[in-house]
Amino acid sequence: MTRMLEAGRGIATGEVKAVARAERVPVEFVRRGVAAGRIVVLRKGESVLGIGEGLRAKVNANIGTSPDYDEPGEEMAKLRAAVGAGADTVMDLSIGGDPYAMLARVLKESPVPVGSVPVYSAFIGAMRGKRRLSDVSGDEMLESVARHLEMGASFVTVHAAITRRGVELARGRVLKVVSRGGCFLSSWMIQNGLENPLYENFGYIIELAKEHDAAISIGDALRPGAISDSGDAAMLHELKLQGRLARIAFSEGVGIICEGPGHMPMGGIAENVRLQKRVCHGAPYYVLGPLVTDIAAGHDHVAGAIGGAIAAAAGADFLCVVTPSEHLALPTAEDVAEGVVASRIAAHAADIARRGRSGPDLEMSRARWRLDWERQLRLALDGRRAAEYRRRRSTGSRACSMCGEFCAYGIAGRAMGR
Amino acid sequence: MTRMLEAGRGIATGEVKAVARAERVPVEFVRRGVAAGRIVVLRKGESVLGIGEGLRAKVNANIGTSPDYDEPGEEMAKLRAAVGAGADTVMDLSIGGDPYAMLARVLKESPVPVGSVPVYSAFIGAMRGKRRLSDVSGDEMLESVARHLEMGASFVTVHAAITRRGVELARGRVLKVVSRGGCFLSSWMIQNGLENPLYENFGYIIELAKEHDAAISIGDALRPGAISDSGDAAMLHELKLQGRLARIAFSEGVGIICEGPGHMPMGGIAENVRLQKRVCHGAPYYVLGPLVTDIAAGHDHVAGAIGGAIAAAAGADFLCVVTPSEHLALPTAEDVAEGVVASRIAAHAADIARRGRSGPDLEMSRARWRLDWERQLRLALDGRRAAEYRRRRSTGSRACSMCGEFCAYGIAGRAMGR
Repeated sequence: MTRMLEAGRGIATGEVKAVARAERVPVEFVRRGVAAGRIVVLRKGESVLGIGEGLRAKVNANIGTSPDYDEPGEEMAKLRAAVGAGADTVMDLSIGGDPYAMLARVLKESPVPVGSVPVYSAFIGAMRGKRRLSDVSGDEMLESVARHLEMGASFVTVHAAITRRGVELARGRVLKVVSRGGCFLSSWMIQNGLENPLYENFGYIIELAKEHDAAISIGDALRPGAISDSGDAAMLHELKLQGRLARIAFSEGVGIICEGPGHMPMGGIAENVRLQKRVCHGAPYYVLGPLVTDIAAGHDHVAGAIGGAIAAAAGADFLCVVTPSEHLALPTAEDVAEGVVASRIAAHAADIARRGRSGPDLEMSRARWRLDWERQLRLALDGRRAAEYRRRRSTGSRACSMCGEFCAYGIAGRAMGR
Repeated sequence: MTRMLEAGRGIATGEVKAVARAERVPVEFVRRGVAAGRIVVLRKGESVLGIGEGLRAKVNANIGTSPDYDEPGEEMAKLRAAVGAGADTVMDLSIGGDPYAMLARVLKESPVPVGSVPVYSAFIGAMRGKRRLSDVSGDEMLESVARHLEMGASFVTVHAAITRRGVELARGRVLKVVSRGGCFLSSWMIQNGLENPLYENFGYIIELAKEHDAAISIGDALRPGAISDSGDAAMLHELKLQGRLARIAFSEGVGIICEGPGHMPMGGIAENVRLQKRVCHGAPYYVLGPLVTDIAAGHDHVAGAIGGAIAAAAGADFLCVVTPSEHLALPTAEDVAEGVVASRIAAHAADIARRGRSGPDLEMSRARWRLDWERQLRLALDGRRAAEYRRRRSTGSRACSMCGEFCAYGIAGRAMGR
């Protein structure tokens, strides 16, 4: 009996109540959302997280080793940095060293729900064992999904909506395939002349998810990696298949998440969110950015925050962090934290727009008027950073060093009453 | 004969042609825009800059001393940092030491158009001479405008649209008045029981602008400084008066810029831009942010980039940089550069949305597919920063350290042809 089926029978479980409490929405709203697949519930130990329509937009941070930097200790530091900066979930995308050992470590130490991409383990394991990418069997791919779920991943990304047809449609692109899982699978399909095993066996994947009551995140293997590829036939083809797979999952009572772009011009984002929601039957929408320009390397967290805010305001539910080192290098712990805060700003800005929740903003403004710095630093999304800036130019004055004696709050306060 | 009047007579001057060339739009488009007041032309030496409808959104960086950090050398470093990071204009907002000396230095060394806020000089000068704020005369305020224009400011902010009525309307706010000029003037009006001399003598200010063919930027003295104050009666009252003043300026053939918020929820920004443009007869719109949340201290450049991108996509023409130290401290040169890049990302993202100009993005995506790093770093908005990230984890490999041997461009390139 999955959460979705239980909710469908009218049962408001402890988890549903916990989500309602955390989000300050009625229990019945959450129960209905879970029953309809509009809300998924992720769990990690005592931590329960709702993602979906009408809830606060959530933020995921990616961590994980790479072949060039296989330093598990550094990845654990990133986990702590991400959680410390306020990430709601983390995904372990390790492709260096032993991905299973790394996932086990992340699962053990993470206080927040953990997602993973099982198919990486299948391909990386084979290729490291000197087998060719095309030698990986469909069974190995499915086994990797089973194993990640058994290990306790709260959600797993499965690139089940990329098919041979989708790959053909992507051939005309500037950046054909930019998703790691997508490029493994498209190469596998091209080299073997076979259909994607994750697509053909999606029913089995849903059975596995049902067994563990975990969520499947339907990957966006053909997400556009360039503004000029955005909204093309390959992207729309995969979206259509995501919708079909969503229907299969829902018919079995399994909650899913659908992943989306990628790189996308600002003007197309709101429309994309509405389309995705409609095609995928209201399933929670997880966006990777979107990045609103291709030329922000070194500052892609800013480009991602712009796209993420617009997406979340239009209804996207889950923002994947983009770090400042995106497109350039494996991020450091500091980069991850920087990215998490940028995404949280986007999510919160959207929350003000979509749910009218500006309570902390009002408190902050009151604290500013009173020049109450202690409270300002406590209310800031990143109080530690705010404190650093304040300290760096400390003058001992109540005003900040921008205006000093000519502080607007001071002058207007005296003239208009504090 | 001002630029606006000349353009109105059908003359396409060298400046108009230079703007058309830089923006890749027809000369006639620029001429008509200038004639109608929809485009202003700013000049600094040989550097000619168009701001307004149908042109690339521009970015202004603020620099200037404060009473607590009166270090002209540091401000000159900020000027270089701002220009180096790609700011289209700088405003000198010095309120420490001798503001005239500082402005002279900035005007001498800046390669880009320089804006200033004359009324600061009047108030700061008086208060530093132990006179009270309320002792400053209207004539002194007007003299400061004349002097800044004589010194060669390309545009000056004049807080002419804040009146006694506006101040009364702002009394109910959480953060009554947050603009420095606005708080000087509102306190002056309250203490003297008199109307704003800049409002009452706007015709004279326009005469001065005409004499120097400089642009007047009508300040947003009552710009909301809190999400909860956004869109209130005080803001709308000032906007209405900006529209009246715009009409006076246009009737004299003087180009203006209108300044806007401030702090504003995402959902209200596009509507605000449309309203501002309508009320102000299409005058170029200069936004200070807008900041889409109040709790991003330490990362306000990100909150400002979100708001700025949305504003510019909706038609705002000029984005004022918000630095990461906003609300906390006088920024450093590094903060200014960080803010400039964030605003340029916002402006460029909006440009893709509003003018379909994604040429450099396409080139960047092509360079990515070829793993041509030299070209990627050259195309990046901040190539220096991008190079730092790439170098930090340098592996000698063509791929980046994120995926190494499992680089999607590499794998997909082999399978699908490069």
